[in-house]
Amino acid sequence: MDTQVRAPEWQVCQWFNSAPLSLAALRGRVVVLHAFQMLCPGCVSHAVPQAERLHRRFASAELVVVGLHTVFEHHLAMAPSALEVFLKEYRITHPVAVDQPLAGTAIPATMRAYAMEGTPTLVLIDRTGHIRLQATGGVDDLQLGILVGELLALK
Amino acid sequence: MDTQVRAPEWQVCQWFNSAPLSLAALRGRVVVLHAFQMLCPGCVSHAVPQAERLHRRFASAELVVVGLHTVFEHHLAMAPSALEVFLKEYRITHPVAVDQPLAGTAIPATMRAYAMEGTPTLVLIDRTGHIRLQATGGVDDLQLGILVGELLALK
Amino acid sequence: MDTQVRAPEWQVCQWFNSAPLSLAALRGRVVVLHAFQMLCPGCVSHAVPQAERLHRRFASAELVVVGLHTVFEHHLAMAPSALEVFLKEYRITHPVAVDQPLAGTAIPATMRAYAMEGTPTLVLIDRTGHIRLQATGGVDDLQLGILVGELLALK
Amino acid sequence: MDTQVRAPEWQVCQWFNSAPLSLAALRGRVVVLHAFQMLCPGCVSHAVPQAERLHRRFASAELVVVGLHTVFEHHLAMAPSALEVFLKEYRITHPVAVDQPLAGTAIPATMRAYAMEGTPTLVLIDRTGHIRLQATGGVDDLQLGILVGELLALK
Repeated sequence: MDTQVRAPEWQVCQWFNSAPLSLAALRGRVVVLHAFQMLCPGCVSHAVPQAERLHRRFASAELVVVGLHTVFEHHLAMAPSALEVFLKEYRITHPVAVDQPLAGTAIPATMRAYAMEGTPTLVLIDRTGHIRLQATGGVDDLQLGILVGELLALK
Repeated sequence: MDTQVRAPEWQVCQWFNSAPLSLAALRGRVVVLHAFQMLCPGCVSHAVPQAERLHRRFASAELVVVGLHTVFEHHLAMAPSALEVFLKEYRITHPVAVDQPLAGTAIPATMRAYAMEGTPTLVLIDRTGHIRLQATGGVDDLQLGILVGELLALK
Repeated sequence: MDTQVRAPEWQVCQWFNSAPLSLAALRGRVVVLHAFQMLCPGCVSHAVPQAERLHRRFASAELVVVGLHTVFEHHLAMAPSALEVFLKEYRITHPVAVDQPLAGTAIPATMRAYAMEGTPTLVLIDRTGHIRLQATGGVDDLQLGILVGELLALK
Repeated sequence: MDTQVRAPEWQVCQWFNSAPLSLAALRGRVVVLHAFQMLCPGCVSHAVPQAERLHRRFASAELVVVGLHTVFEHHLAMAPSALEVFLKEYRITHPVAVDQPLAGTAIPATMRAYAMEGTPTLVLIDRTGHIRLQATGGVDDLQLGILVGELLALK
């Protein structure tokens, strides 16, 4: 596991559905982080509902699902006030963080720290805080389940 | 057909994907009007893609598909500038009208004139300008097809 | 309409879900004929359920849906006794005819008369008994609906 | 794990897509056993394709997927010769066993030994040969993945 990359702490300016969560405080738990934009079709049809399913059925003291709103285009249309409407209308209950905008660049801070290439992006972080998967475009339910199951079994 | 309701002219403040269209000017053609909101989940997953499929495959000199953005809640998050992003990201190519807001009420003008009860709402208008169906929640592809086919055959 | 092909009378050795139906006796009604095999994956996932949907919601004095079991391979596994089990397990309620086998060829009689190229095949027959569409692989709900609606409106 | 039930050895009269496999010989590997009938709609639409997906993408020296054709009704229509056609037409590549019929009862031997209540039934067996899940009706991809992932991680 020495060769795994340590997951950078996320930088967040606002939280929905949760008090602020830090990655450091989640050490010991498996973390499923999914980066999305509320007007990205693949996020809305696939990644966000998948994360919500995972959260509703499997979130526990062992497993945390966190959404990260990584707005890198159309910033005005996807401002936090619009995101709040989106989360309400789609009945999203899992914690969602707004990635911290950076002056002088369209890419927000956490998205840059993880070198994400677009949305949706799925990141699986093990109990020790290391990245075990980072997949642009996401993965399907079967693959996600197997990866999460394996990480949950590693104590 | 005397008992059919004449479709009210729509009141629009902005058009996307088209020069302004008036219902009066479409007399002689079958019109499929679908009212939606860009942050309404049932609109995004069902009604908008259905209208786009109908437009791409069957729009003609006989058949016109028009979207109507009837914002009656969360007006700021669904402003025309946000709608423009939505239409671009979802690659919507059929004509979309922004329903005219009215002072002193959340319900825009065309939505009120048609007494629509929510979104999505599907309205089928025959060649003579009469309403032949108005369905809150929309209808499925098979039923929509049969209704459109029947109206197309009526000269 | 002179250029339309007259639909050949079907040749059937057994009926399920109906007394025997002849095409001649259905003159004046729109007929949706769908040819299938019970072990053809595309038939089971798409064509048979589509026909059943059309039948349950739109069958009338104007519209008849008929399934035709055109077995051209694996005849033993798809014998009428096996078809009976299939129709019961899948809760198919529309009329289904077994295409008449012919000595010396794997292709049954009606399939040959219509020159069908495989299963599923969809055939739309108008009120005058002429073929208006014959589509190998079938069509989707929207297109089927429009075609059926147009034929229904032609008196 | 002492409270887990030891999986009974299966009793099989014929294999497709594989040389004969015994449960005893698979000790040390995770086994996903799915019981189905070729004319059971829920098996054909859900359980069989799910098993095939799991096999094609994740079968390995650690994980084995086995289908078990547990015919308990309509035995003639689902004879092994018909099953062979089904597997070919649906392009099933994972190992499939025919459950051994028993004289004097409609329920075949393995189905009875596992006290299965119908089809589809999913059984997960760990590396030590104990049953970790037996689910009538099957489970969805996310849950199946998590369970398989957990069992794979237990060495």
